[in-house]
Amino acid sequence: MITGQNFIGSKRSAKGDVVFRTINPELNAHNDWESIEATTAEIDEATELAWKAFKEYRKTSDHERADFLDAIADEIELLGDTLLNVYCKESGLPQGRATGERGRTMFQLRSFAEMLRNGNWRDVAIDEAIPDRKPLPKADLRKTYIPLGPVVVFGSSNFPLAYSTAGGDTASALAAGCPVIVKSHPMHAGTGELVAMAIIKAAEKTGMPNGVFSNLNSNGIEVGVRLVNDPKVKAVGFTGSIKGGRALFDIANRRPEPIPLFAEMGSINPVVITEGALKENGEKWAEAYAGSITLGAGQFCTNPGLILAIESDGLDKFKRSLAEKIVKIDATCMLHPNIKSAYSTLKNEVSSQVGVKSLSIPLEVEANYADQAVAEVSGDAFLQNPKLHQEVFGPFSLIVKCANEQQLLTIIEQLEGQLTGTIIAEDSELSELTDIVDELSQRVGRIIFNGVPTGVEVCPSMNHGGPYPASTDARFTAVGLHAIKRWIRPISYQSFPGKLLPEELK
Amino acid sequence: MITGQNFIGSKRSAKGDVVFRTINPELNAHNDWESIEATTAEIDEATELAWKAFKEYRKTSDHERADFLDAIADEIELLGDTLLNVYCKESGLPQGRATGERGRTMFQLRSFAEMLRNGNWRDVAIDEAIPDRKPLPKADLRKTYIPLGPVVVFGSSNFPLAYSTAGGDTASALAAGCPVIVKSHPMHAGTGELVAMAIIKAAEKTGMPNGVFSNLNSNGIEVGVRLVNDPKVKAVGFTGSIKGGRALFDIANRRPEPIPLFAEMGSINPVVITEGALKENGEKWAEAYAGSITLGAGQFCTNPGLILAIESDGLDKFKRSLAEKIVKIDATCMLHPNIKSAYSTLKNEVSSQVGVKSLSIPLEVEANYADQAVAEVSGDAFLQNPKLHQEVFGPFSLIVKCANEQQLLTIIEQLEGQLTGTIIAEDSELSELTDIVDELSQRVGRIIFNGVPTGVEVCPSMNHGGPYPASTDARFTAVGLHAIKRWIRPISYQSFPGKLLPEELK
Repeated sequence: MITGQNFIGSKRSAKGDVVFRTINPELNAHNDWESIEATTAEIDEATELAWKAFKEYRKTSDHERADFLDAIADEIELLGDTLLNVYCKESGLPQGRATGERGRTMFQLRSFAEMLRNGNWRDVAIDEAIPDRKPLPKADLRKTYIPLGPVVVFGSSNFPLAYSTAGGDTASALAAGCPVIVKSHPMHAGTGELVAMAIIKAAEKTGMPNGVFSNLNSNGIEVGVRLVNDPKVKAVGFTGSIKGGRALFDIANRRPEPIPLFAEMGSINPVVITEGALKENGEKWAEAYAGSITLGAGQFCTNPGLILAIESDGLDKFKRSLAEKIVKIDATCMLHPNIKSAYSTLKNEVSSQVGVKSLSIPLEVEANYADQAVAEVSGDAFLQNPKLHQEVFGPFSLIVKCANEQQLLTIIEQLEGQLTGTIIAEDSELSELTDIVDELSQRVGRIIFNGVPTGVEVCPSMNHGGPYPASTDARFTAVGLHAIKRWIRPISYQSFPGKLLPEELK
Repeated sequence: MITGQNFIGSKRSAKGDVVFRTINPELNAHNDWESIEATTAEIDEATELAWKAFKEYRKTSDHERADFLDAIADEIELLGDTLLNVYCKESGLPQGRATGERGRTMFQLRSFAEMLRNGNWRDVAIDEAIPDRKPLPKADLRKTYIPLGPVVVFGSSNFPLAYSTAGGDTASALAAGCPVIVKSHPMHAGTGELVAMAIIKAAEKTGMPNGVFSNLNSNGIEVGVRLVNDPKVKAVGFTGSIKGGRALFDIANRRPEPIPLFAEMGSINPVVITEGALKENGEKWAEAYAGSITLGAGQFCTNPGLILAIESDGLDKFKRSLAEKIVKIDATCMLHPNIKSAYSTLKNEVSSQVGVKSLSIPLEVEANYADQAVAEVSGDAFLQNPKLHQEVFGPFSLIVKCANEQQLLTIIEQLEGQLTGTIIAEDSELSELTDIVDELSQRVGRIIFNGVPTGVEVCPSMNHGGPYPASTDARFTAVGLHAIKRWIRPISYQSFPGKLLPEELK
């Protein structure tokens, strides 16, 4: 069923001679199927076709696009176990996660469809004419939003479904009226091809223009770089590393016509735990965080990688408890040998910095499995060493023992931008938390009280993004219905005859 | 009353030795007063102070900031004739325009104040908890918006009040909760200093933190470049040339932490006139466009610099009529000798391109006065020559005689991004305009029917911006209440106790 071919609109195409295979990290072996990297000519054909499709697709009604999105969800479901099995073989993630992520992906598509059907998602504004206004008459002005044009979406390694081929970026861009070209993630090219098939089927069934969606395979950086440089591409969605995201951001901004590039990148998601919480509920929070740190082998962008607390007996007890609990959890498989290797390298780099002390006992694990760990360091050492601020992608967390509240606040203020920040405290301490909440809110996109940062709800009040480098544009969310705002822009109609106005302005 | 000093918060400061004087273009002579360019140390002091002020200013209530904005408007009014006289001496613009622009500036400030008092300008979203949801409980999530941090505003040459020191960028940034540092425009440094005085007085009267506003003089590019590179600056507003805007945009994006830079830049504001309109109302539109092209010596970013029509007898008559009418209008003074000189150079460059024919008789004008002109060229020649697509800042317009509708559509599709596009047609032609409206809407931020593009209403449905290079981010407007959205970002609060929530989320 997997052919390894690219989709240029509804046409399968495989003109290239660069062939690659995905890896089953559980078996530490290549999967059977091959994928063929898109050639320069194929890339250009896809953007050309997307541009042509845009001329039609931008004229579709909200209801037509809603039907398209619902049909994509249906077609993904119809892929059944085939999709789930390939997903597991290409990610090392368990069947339950595959089912859950597929459900979330369909939910996202259907949520955007529902929003399109429900009415004023565009936030239109209408100011009627005042012909007798002095000194000058006022013209009739009406503002709506229109799609930017073809959007390139980069699949992400850690969410082969929910943040990839038909994930949040694709769903929101298609909802907005933008054709999408997916640069498929090389670690799950087979999963990507199956989902692309579902999208193409849905497009055909609902009469969408050919080119509204294309899927290009790539194993290196060339396909992505060429796509971001293409003048027919008008915006980009990316989820991945800071290095990769920043490189693409720079390309997007150096174009003769710069375009928005939304990169959701690294985050260490600081957690502040108060003395009261450590004293009263230290055991409970150690349990919760052992779970949150190891969830999905720690391969979530909201993984809690930094725990900040002021030194106290409670903190000593908490860190011992967390170190004990975390190693009792079964180790799990990581997404790819390269991800496991990067995890080991970074964990060792952080752990070997001056002043860093490992807290958990070293684990023996199978190939590609993650050996979860926690370590600690003093606030002074943390402040002096930027290497300790970097994300260790995997089940690792660093506890920072602060000398006092002032040092805690200084650390928060000096943190790089983050997706989330969490505060763990007792109700009796609320009035002492104002400064911490204020400083933390300046550094994060979402702030959580007495919970864990992992788990990102898909709803209008969700914000998934944050100050750089958590994302390249903190003014937009990558998750939830407002994600559509990344792909549209305002336009005002002045003194326009009703007949020529867009439906929503009539 | 003008001291030439910088304002670093409420402190006057003039440590530098670079001194410059503004020019009265009517007299073609320097004005009496001097301004002292800010030094590196003064720039750094201003950003440091803005950063400190931000910690307080971000905590002010909407009503406190509303009072501040209203007080700025009051203080500007209290400057009375002193301000109007300096404005005229530094811009060559007439007293009526000075009064009108001052009125608009106060109206903008008061409009933002009213919006702050009126309620939910932040577009908050609240999703309450569903503790018994299966398979997982849903947490309480509430989203609001917070200010980005200190904002740098570059004063613009052509609006010494409405787009400068206390103009739309400053008003919207202060409304959002961002301290503002103005890089004063060297052509009207005196006007800038007077307005800065008003802002500082208003800040003191309403108890705003010192550093909420600073005003720095500069006659070169160094002050602006240093400000945009400063890590404590979190966003930038700019109105001016494509060259200047793009240079600053590149700096903003190459920072270790890139920041949003909103540059509203060049535009030639295409106008499409149909055969029917030329036949039935050619005289009327020639009259209207002779006025619109020469309004304010053509020094508006919405000046109609390009008129597109399919060849017809009506077009020949229209162009003769426009050429006759435009030279009958009294020539007016431009803002500055440099602007007059750039106008002459560009007008001559465009007029001397292959195939371009001048339509109006050459005018003899006084020094710094604009000799308005119209020229024509064929659609073929226009398509082949990018030099004809550039903005000629001043009272000049190029008529493009298209061979047919297909060529007209091709020209529209190949135009660079524009602030506005206008369609002039008869009611009987509406059904033939669909394609033109569709293509034009893709290239512009505002589309006008049977009117002129000059005159930008300040209201919620106004969009002032457009695809690059009209602006660097088409997703935001520089005029109207939604301009505040440039300076805020979303943040979600998850499971937060009411006591710690921002007011608007309680």
